Amino acid sequence: MYDKRISSGETITFVFARRIQHAPASFLGELFRVSSDPSIISFAGGLPSSELIDTEGISSAAQDVFKTDPRTALQYSTTDGYRPLREYIADRYRSRLGVPATADEIQITNGSQQCLDLFAKIFLDPGDLVGMERPGYLGAIEAFSLYEPEFLTVPLNHEGPDTVVFEKTMKEKPVKFFYGIPNCQNPSGCTYSQERRKEIAEILSDTETVFYEDDAFGELFFDGTPRLPIKRFLMENTVISGSFSKITAPGMRIGWMYASFEILKEFNIAKQAADLHSNFLCQQILHRYLVTNDLDSHIRKIVSVYRRQCQLMCDLFDDLMPSLTHTTPEGGMFLTAELPSGLHAMKVFEEGVREKVAVLPGMPFFVDGGGTNIIRLNFSNANEERITEGMYRLAKVINGLSSKKS
Amino acid sequence: MYDKRISSGETITFVFARRIQHAPASFLGELFRVSSDPSIISFAGGLPSSELIDTEGISSAAQDVFKTDPRTALQYSTTDGYRPLREYIADRYRSRLGVPATADEIQITNGSQQCLDLFAKIFLDPGDLVGMERPGYLGAIEAFSLYEPEFLTVPLNHEGPDTVVFEKTMKEKPVKFFYGIPNCQNPSGCTYSQERRKEIAEILSDTETVFYEDDAFGELFFDGTPRLPIKRFLMENTVISGSFSKITAPGMRIGWMYASFEILKEFNIAKQAADLHSNFLCQQILHRYLVTNDLDSHIRKIVSVYRRQCQLMCDLFDDLMPSLTHTTPEGGMFLTAELPSGLHAMKVFEEGVREKVAVLPGMPFFVDGGGTNIIRLNFSNANEERITEGMYRLAKVINGLSSKKS
Repeated sequence: MYDKRISSGETITFVFARRIQHAPASFLGELFRVSSDPSIISFAGGLPSSELIDTEGISSAAQDVFKTDPRTALQYSTTDGYRPLREYIADRYRSRLGVPATADEIQITNGSQQCLDLFAKIFLDPGDLVGMERPGYLGAIEAFSLYEPEFLTVPLNHEGPDTVVFEKTMKEKPVKFFYGIPNCQNPSGCTYSQERRKEIAEILSDTETVFYEDDAFGELFFDGTPRLPIKRFLMENTVISGSFSKITAPGMRIGWMYASFEILKEFNIAKQAADLHSNFLCQQILHRYLVTNDLDSHIRKIVSVYRRQCQLMCDLFDDLMPSLTHTTPEGGMFLTAELPSGLHAMKVFEEGVREKVAVLPGMPFFVDGGGTNIIRLNFSNANEERITEGMYRLAKVINGLSSKKS
Repeated sequence: MYDKRISSGETITFVFARRIQHAPASFLGELFRVSSDPSIISFAGGLPSSELIDTEGISSAAQDVFKTDPRTALQYSTTDGYRPLREYIADRYRSRLGVPATADEIQITNGSQQCLDLFAKIFLDPGDLVGMERPGYLGAIEAFSLYEPEFLTVPLNHEGPDTVVFEKTMKEKPVKFFYGIPNCQNPSGCTYSQERRKEIAEILSDTETVFYEDDAFGELFFDGTPRLPIKRFLMENTVISGSFSKITAPGMRIGWMYASFEILKEFNIAKQAADLHSNFLCQQILHRYLVTNDLDSHIRKIVSVYRRQCQLMCDLFDDLMPSLTHTTPEGGMFLTAELPSGLHAMKVFEEGVREKVAVLPGMPFFVDGGGTNIIRLNFSNANEERITEGMYRLAKVINGLSSKKS
């Protein structure tokens, strides 16, 4: 049926770009595979609670869109995104955080992951310096790595990045941008103190370095109180990325970049070249949902569940695995635990999967080979019953491995 | 309210990546703006007919998805895409084109524009050679340019790329990949002959060059007969990108890359870093729509309308503007016309907008400053009444400018 000469099945060697060799071995794919096995209780993923997605509200919003003007919603649209949605986002910055955002400063993206890719694309030449927290978000490391930068990391403690190291790094090796998650960081769950935010703004105020403030979790503080973004103290040199994945639904893939017009102009060119525009149907459904539902009340519901689940996980760590030290998040979806000396995170992952509980080894959050004594746990996706059962399984793994070791 | 020192409004100079200087001045944004002014009859855009989008079918599919398993549709998903949709696409390659595709060789993307970005990302280092048709698709030029390649172009005639030039180029300066649109090319509307496809496959068969076959329009042949893809003659060295934008709805932004596993493995890493995965809700809605509706019958309806509209546009060119020569497409959504000598396409664009008719100047389809005597017209979006009115307006512009010139 096919031309024999050509379909001979011989292996062809493709010559890929150099950047592909810079891609870190990815854990995310493996994660999603583990997450999809229902017999495994997974704390390894980064999923919000499926039970808390307002499927009825979104379904009803979708029906409204299909009734109102489906031909527009299903047609091509502009790169910057659905204007009423951008206005909603800008309004919320003004009312919630006192930051004078306008719709013109908002670009809609496919979740905030796309912000990482496009921002790196417009800023990074090979060999350029990028600053990050240590540990830092693995999705950012993956996205940035493909633009072949050199990473400089600053240790993260419970108040934020170490300012002594931060200031020294910025002076000696000024980075193009510093990427951080000041609110409920991924993986650690740590939140920068307000004092630390001001110090960072101060250090960067006379430089060309941009602070890239990833705010995926700022709506998820357990005390319901928003923290002032670094942009509040360093207006022009800070960009903020945001996402509806954690407060409405990830499957629609809607996030945004909030940046000054000068940056957004280039960002928009990159967005257009990348995929013309984000899913317009879902932009309309999401906007319809937001204006016909009480988002704040929905978020309070999410937060009250996550707070209990986080507390439960922390308590079970303390009760069942006293040899570990763990972070104590003020919000968000993640915490990290430090393993007893000599216990390798990969061993815990492998043994965990055998015992039907998954945690994420810390290595993908480190660009320098660190993280082998760290595990990240997600407390948003599993309910209290599964958290309890999963933590008992994990305790069996940890305590078993610890006793073997000693 | 804000710290004075920091919010002083002084202009900060951002240091963007070198690639941003390689971005061609974009016409697409301007296009969409022109397209949104209802008083202008626009042949400049690339929109399928809004009237032919099956809003009822898609709405009903959406309701089904919301009734069946909305929590999964609204949650994060895997990077490769919704497997039943990938199986549907692979099935269609097998039944329609006799190409032995499997779901494992299909990666879902945000329209086929994202294929351009991600493919360039995994293949191109700065200075690498890329082959393209002349004229070539502007969206591809925009996407590839950001990876700083050197473009080599091969003149496109009505049978396909000039094979003498093609062979000479491939021998003297082997490109990483050659990008082409064999079916109803954008902008010209030209279709490669089967003979030309075989010749190209022959020339590339012993090389490392990949043929990137953009097949956005292969379902839109006026005679309803599919043409054999180049992949049929050059299996392992060809990738095909496809899109649902032209046969169902662009607003959902669903396309795909069909490639060998070796390429798709790297493509998948780039996709994950770019945005984790494509909109999962719309992948499910689209799949539901495809399995509960008769796509072939829907496509026949689209094609019969586009065929009439294209014929009308060609006839009006011949009747009203005999000084122009235009291509005669066998399908798709576009044709190009060559302006009388001395008449600049930008002049026609500007004068056209004044007369409330928009055409697209040819320059963005050329990487070498060409195209000033070419205009591209879209015949899918405007109905026959508007095509007639628009062509009369265009004739007034063209004939007015021609007489002024002489």
